[in-house]
Amino acid sequence: MAVGQPHFPLMPPISGVQLGTSCAGIKQTLRDDLLIFEAAEGATCAAVFTQNAFCAAPVIVAKNHLPQSPRWLLINSGNANAGTGEQGMRDAMQTCQDLANMTGGNMAQVLPFSTGVIGQALPIDKITSALPSTLMNLTEDNWQKAALAIMTTDTFPKGVSKTIELNGHKITINGISKGAGMIQPNMATMLGFIATDAKISHELLQNCLLDAAELSFNRITVDGDTSTNDACVILASGATHAPEIFEDTHEYDIFYQAILKVCQELAELIIRDGEGATKLIRIEVSEAANIQEAVQVAKTIAHSPLVKTAFFASDPNWGRILAAVGRAGVVNMNLEAIRIYLDDVCIVREGGRADDYTEEAGQAVMDQTEIKISVKLGRGSIKQTVLTCDFSYDYVKINAEYRT
Amino acid sequence: MAVGQPHFPLMPPISGVQLGTSCAGIKQTLRDDLLIFEAAEGATCAAVFTQNAFCAAPVIVAKNHLPQSPRWLLINSGNANAGTGEQGMRDAMQTCQDLANMTGGNMAQVLPFSTGVIGQALPIDKITSALPSTLMNLTEDNWQKAALAIMTTDTFPKGVSKTIELNGHKITINGISKGAGMIQPNMATMLGFIATDAKISHELLQNCLLDAAELSFNRITVDGDTSTNDACVILASGATHAPEIFEDTHEYDIFYQAILKVCQELAELIIRDGEGATKLIRIEVSEAANIQEAVQVAKTIAHSPLVKTAFFASDPNWGRILAAVGRAGVVNMNLEAIRIYLDDVCIVREGGRADDYTEEAGQAVMDQTEIKISVKLGRGSIKQTVLTCDFSYDYVKINAEYRT
Repeated sequence: MAVGQPHFPLMPPISGVQLGTSCAGIKQTLRDDLLIFEAAEGATCAAVFTQNAFCAAPVIVAKNHLPQSPRWLLINSGNANAGTGEQGMRDAMQTCQDLANMTGGNMAQVLPFSTGVIGQALPIDKITSALPSTLMNLTEDNWQKAALAIMTTDTFPKGVSKTIELNGHKITINGISKGAGMIQPNMATMLGFIATDAKISHELLQNCLLDAAELSFNRITVDGDTSTNDACVILASGATHAPEIFEDTHEYDIFYQAILKVCQELAELIIRDGEGATKLIRIEVSEAANIQEAVQVAKTIAHSPLVKTAFFASDPNWGRILAAVGRAGVVNMNLEAIRIYLDDVCIVREGGRADDYTEEAGQAVMDQTEIKISVKLGRGSIKQTVLTCDFSYDYVKINAEYRT
Repeated sequence: MAVGQPHFPLMPPISGVQLGTSCAGIKQTLRDDLLIFEAAEGATCAAVFTQNAFCAAPVIVAKNHLPQSPRWLLINSGNANAGTGEQGMRDAMQTCQDLANMTGGNMAQVLPFSTGVIGQALPIDKITSALPSTLMNLTEDNWQKAALAIMTTDTFPKGVSKTIELNGHKITINGISKGAGMIQPNMATMLGFIATDAKISHELLQNCLLDAAELSFNRITVDGDTSTNDACVILASGATHAPEIFEDTHEYDIFYQAILKVCQELAELIIRDGEGATKLIRIEVSEAANIQEAVQVAKTIAHSPLVKTAFFASDPNWGRILAAVGRAGVVNMNLEAIRIYLDDVCIVREGGRADDYTEEAGQAVMDQTEIKISVKLGRGSIKQTVLTCDFSYDYVKINAEYRT
């Protein structure tokens, strides 16, 4: 199930970034499960990683390798190489070494990523055996295959492409992601890979990605569980004819906005494909005193199983939203000042149900598949948005029956 | 559904505390929904209330009245008088005034409590009309009826009784509770009422209840949602022949331990009756550096929908427990030092699956209806326990279909 399953977009090649896929046989069903990105020499790279303390072996290795000007991303689906202890570390490094041997690069220039089942040893023989054919397939025009290769329980491939113009030169940004839950059923989960032909330093690219991820991937939640393997990486090949992008310039603003848009659209695709999702819920908290409290209120609503089951049932059960706002932990809230809306229908005002609210108006909004909850706190001028999905029988089914 | 539904215990009368119930017709089905506690003159009273900022009108009124030596508790089920704004406040105070008029007391000596649907006006006419017959029914021997009268979607009445001896005199402690979820389906939820014939000051009783509630009611969770109406109250009639209990005495220790036990057993009964619960899960986090981090780790596991659905499926999916520990937000965790057990079966050691773990051993534990998860952090000597239940199809069903 997915909310408004979108078509995969046309994704033009990114000059200086090649992608190759193959089937290493890691998954139970035979389909591509290995993906290599190869960026041109001189490319820059930035990445953000999961905050989970039990982060997976490939995350640790990728963090260590990130400062070494990486040119290759080696991604497998079907096995997360998480909860695998020392052996997992050795395996992750071995796959980097094997790829380096074949490309003539340095193993520290390879960032490894894994997604799939937790706690099983990575089948490195299968991966190593499949590396040559994956390298044979490298081409700049391979984005849809790449998006398919990183899927686990995702129901559709996720891709976004944007073009901007800087000083008369075109710059292209492509991104793919996989997800379906903050943690999949026993899966370790969200991955995002973005590439561009822009010319930009490693440091500035890292700041750009940090800011964009904060307002995109860090603003979505399916079930509040943070994966052991979450990562988002961006490669900038520098192959464009546009001049290098520098900090605090108009060009950087344009570039950042485009990266942000790519990240936000990739993040939204993950929520549309949330486990068991039947509804897409945008939670906008405005009039907050600061970003932190806005996000706090939005995430408390987004994580409430009671709110999520009510949305699944299309039930305008506004008391549950009100209760979630109330327990969000914001100090000195003025309840009288708070207003809560379902789309344009005001449901709560002056500490209770809005006078003019009718069950019919609330029901009409809830019957939609995409719904916005707006909470106006009356404390300031900050606005933040969090995306989530509903909580259905299928969520329980997918997660209870995954291993049976 | 409930986990190991227990029989209602024999609950002896508490000298100096009378209880009366009646059917005011607040609920859709005709059954007792009104309960009055009347304590002897000179009784002391202590209470703890929900932290939810959107707390219900009766909670606000009860907080205001608590310092006025309350002698009456007026409790209705079927309507929470929450999210009802100014009208709700007037209604809650009116019911206190009506009861005071009939008993000759002061309205500030009445603490009101409501539980049930959020956002509908309290039917005060029904309540006022039923007050005389409720008062007529006052008797010291009415605990089971009282436990039944406060139920909403609870599937069984919840009561605990303990007797202790102080200086050769018997002291009795009775408690009843209702719950089923931190928030019920559109309900506003947990209530606990305890009475004893002990002689103890208001201040010391308040400290006693605060400490006991922290280690009992604040250590359970069904879905992480904190209700707008949660409250726990204790009345001490002082009718015993035992001398008054003072701070820092051996007698206080005995009394506190008994109150703690009553609170813990009432809390466990709420989890056994958790919405859709098929399993009782005890999460014990030990070797923590402090109480806060122990509770933090335990509650992160307890709130994880992925852990809860795995328990519903009797699936020893240890990767989900490990991932929850990892995202609990404890700084500088030494992953190598952490050990995780299902009952006595070690599942995680040295950063990965325990060498000697077998799926069969894990499965045998998961097939039980009561399961203990132990997490040993290797950071200190603090131990804390949190109780929760699993997450079943029925949880979604109960919460999605409540209003249809």
